[in-house]
Amino acid sequence: MSLDLKSLVRTIPDYPKPGILFRDITTLIEHPEGFKESVERLAEAHRGLGFTHVAGIEARGFIFGAGVAIALGVGFVPVRKRGKLPGTTIGQNYALEYGVDTIEIHADVLSNVHKVLVVDDLIATGGTAIAAVGLIRRTGAICDHAAFAIDLPDLGGADKLRAEKVNVSALMAFEGH
Amino acid sequence: MSLDLKSLVRTIPDYPKPGILFRDITTLIEHPEGFKESVERLAEAHRGLGFTHVAGIEARGFIFGAGVAIALGVGFVPVRKRGKLPGTTIGQNYALEYGVDTIEIHADVLSNVHKVLVVDDLIATGGTAIAAVGLIRRTGAICDHAAFAIDLPDLGGADKLRAEKVNVSALMAFEGH
Repeated sequence: MSLDLKSLVRTIPDYPKPGILFRDITTLIEHPEGFKESVERLAEAHRGLGFTHVAGIEARGFIFGAGVAIALGVGFVPVRKRGKLPGTTIGQNYALEYGVDTIEIHADVLSNVHKVLVVDDLIATGGTAIAAVGLIRRTGAICDHAAFAIDLPDLGGADKLRAEKVNVSALMAFEGH
Repeated sequence: MSLDLKSLVRTIPDYPKPGILFRDITTLIEHPEGFKESVERLAEAHRGLGFTHVAGIEARGFIFGAGVAIALGVGFVPVRKRGKLPGTTIGQNYALEYGVDTIEIHADVLSNVHKVLVVDDLIATGGTAIAAVGLIRRTGAICDHAAFAIDLPDLGGADKLRAEKVNVSALMAFEGH
């Protein structure tokens, strides 16, 4: 396995607003070997550690997280935006640039016999990932690992997760915003 | 492989509104063998047919579709709700019970050298799936197969897809709504 995964990520300038370089993973996942190798590398780094579930964050985290769950042979827990899950849920608020948002999981899926790997496509400021870890920990499950395709280290999210005693790994990093 | 996948789907009565029996796939995907076997069966039925991409419909279609893409060794194309994709898109409207919605794909990802399998978690009335097939066909790509974890045959979506010359397969069917 020797693909340059970073070269498969497209950068879209001024999206979603002027001055932002948006790192677009759709060109990575549209590439058969690129997608497969991304998922295999994310799984490989977390094999043999006793995980029982992968929690993927809606929506792009579903794409990578589902693959990692199957590769690890564990269940997949969708972490969804408010109001999207049909059963009884527990939720966690987190701050946006302007306002507050909420993520939810089903209330009955995790407990203190579980160990959960959080997966998302990208970590930037880390608000959603930290909320996901906190939400999962409230169930009693162990949640001390999070894996991302892309880290934007200058935005500090990975460091914030590490300060919460979460092991953070990413396939690649991009400088700047 | 001999799991009773249907027994792993939870039914939630009166969701999202009175009289509806909601078929909840989260209990299936949270089950390690259930999720893996679902994806393997969906992939197995479509191996060797020359597919170049799996198109997964946001958001639950991402979960099954990503796994099927990796199992088939092809790229994954996200079919997203309006305004969610960062690049130039093409879109297709479809009717809802009250109103109209739009799905989009990136404009540059598919062309007449591609063959695409549409994947979603469930087919009910088929509005979204038919829009996805139409959208993909507008790129010139071949799109004559769609695969679902669950079919609700009484709602007629699978028959409507077949009338559009789409081969439809599903892992299981539930009678009623």
